Amino acid sequence: MPDSASLTLVLGGARSGKSRYAESLISEKPSPWRYIATAQAFDDEMTERIAAHRARRDERWQTIDASHDLVDVLAACPKGQPVLVDCLTLWLSNWMLAEADLEAEMRKLTDVLARPAGHWVLVSNEVGSGIVPENALARRFRDEAGRLNQKIAALADEVVLVVAGLPVKVK
Amino acid sequence: MPDSASLTLVLGGARSGKSRYAESLISEKPSPWRYIATAQAFDDEMTERIAAHRARRDERWQTIDASHDLVDVLAACPKGQPVLVDCLTLWLSNWMLAEADLEAEMRKLTDVLARPAGHWVLVSNEVGSGIVPENALARRFRDEAGRLNQKIAALADEVVLVVAGLPVKVK
Amino acid sequence: MPDSASLTLVLGGARSGKSRYAESLISEKPSPWRYIATAQAFDDEMTERIAAHRARRDERWQTIDASHDLVDVLAACPKGQPVLVDCLTLWLSNWMLAEADLEAEMRKLTDVLARPAGHWVLVSNEVGSGIVPENALARRFRDEAGRLNQKIAALADEVVLVVAGLPVKVK
Repeated sequence: MPDSASLTLVLGGARSGKSRYAESLISEKPSPWRYIATAQAFDDEMTERIAAHRARRDERWQTIDASHDLVDVLAACPKGQPVLVDCLTLWLSNWMLAEADLEAEMRKLTDVLARPAGHWVLVSNEVGSGIVPENALARRFRDEAGRLNQKIAALADEVVLVVAGLPVKVK
Repeated sequence: MPDSASLTLVLGGARSGKSRYAESLISEKPSPWRYIATAQAFDDEMTERIAAHRARRDERWQTIDASHDLVDVLAACPKGQPVLVDCLTLWLSNWMLAEADLEAEMRKLTDVLARPAGHWVLVSNEVGSGIVPENALARRFRDEAGRLNQKIAALADEVVLVVAGLPVKVK
Repeated sequence: MPDSASLTLVLGGARSGKSRYAESLISEKPSPWRYIATAQAFDDEMTERIAAHRARRDERWQTIDASHDLVDVLAACPKGQPVLVDCLTLWLSNWMLAEADLEAEMRKLTDVLARPAGHWVLVSNEVGSGIVPENALARRFRDEAGRLNQKIAALADEVVLVVAGLPVKVK
């Protein structure tokens, strides 16, 4: 991998400050920066969250929505451009709602992430440290999200856990 | 800030040993120590929990209940006295139940915490590392608690995450 | 404690990779290795999980099921043999379902763990970092599991938190 390319995974719980920390990593690199958003606005709560995240980013950010086609969008990223993906957990949840073959989708993702074209920073949620959910779908999602985090962490050059806005280096 | 004043945030999950660890930090300082309790005893379970916590503390502790008026109680703390607040998450939950303006309450709190009068140790819960709650109020609480933890962590001189009773230094 | 004996606690959320990491620790030692499984297969989901875990282990592993009698099984482990217990949280949940005296069971366990006969590695779940569960039994389980983790962590020579498959040294 050239010096100008790397893969960083930023993990954290809900409202841990992981997106903001990931943005700070990207903004140390020369702009323009690419922001790949995976959120789907199903309801007002989600629409507000997306708008609040967008409002934080200035014109140096190019935002691309990729609720499902993250792999194609990543493959088309220009060589050398810093890229932020926010977040892998929502992307996984979108494919799960679509009843896709998650194993196959994860394999396509890890294939493209094995060869980053620039400094790529991926945000993902830590969802497995609560009590076992009563809902079977939630249990399955928790398992798949944990497996995805492990796969990406194994590929990544750096892994950071964000706790109350502060980074804890894991790899 | 004088040498005799500092702000420490102790984070941890339920039954992680965070209160006990926070007490150990305070007890390294000269007594008497001030214990500010934010719990409200709504039911038997909570009453028992409060009693168990109290039973652990001897006469060197001065306990003050502050389910809502934490800011005033902190502002009135004598200069140089070590203070333990247990915990911020319950204080936030009390104001949320009272349908208060949480943003305003948080601002008043961070104002007083920016100028600690002695060694102040604050306990707070990590609540965002499980699956997204189905209950909308729980989701909102999780968000607000995460935001509060980030604000306090940014102000704090030291931040410690307690895991199974053991401290992990975060800041 | 002789050089050939030690106690390691491996903590992590669901699908954090904690079992796999614990297996990697044991496999650095000379085989045969003893695998003590505490899972009870109540339903298809659990049966599949157990089968997937077993499929990963070759003939150098001797698997013993101990859903409840973990203490006796540990006490009978040959001197010098590496042992993996997967996991303490399920063992606790089995006794809780049996409406046992958990305090007494935990005491028997910590008694035997205070004198490991070889390199013993214990896997346990971190369950306390989500929102407070609405279900009272889940709340009680979360409390007991947290208390158990604290007790074992206090005894252990090493404590590791696994995040996305990666070890974070806690003790």
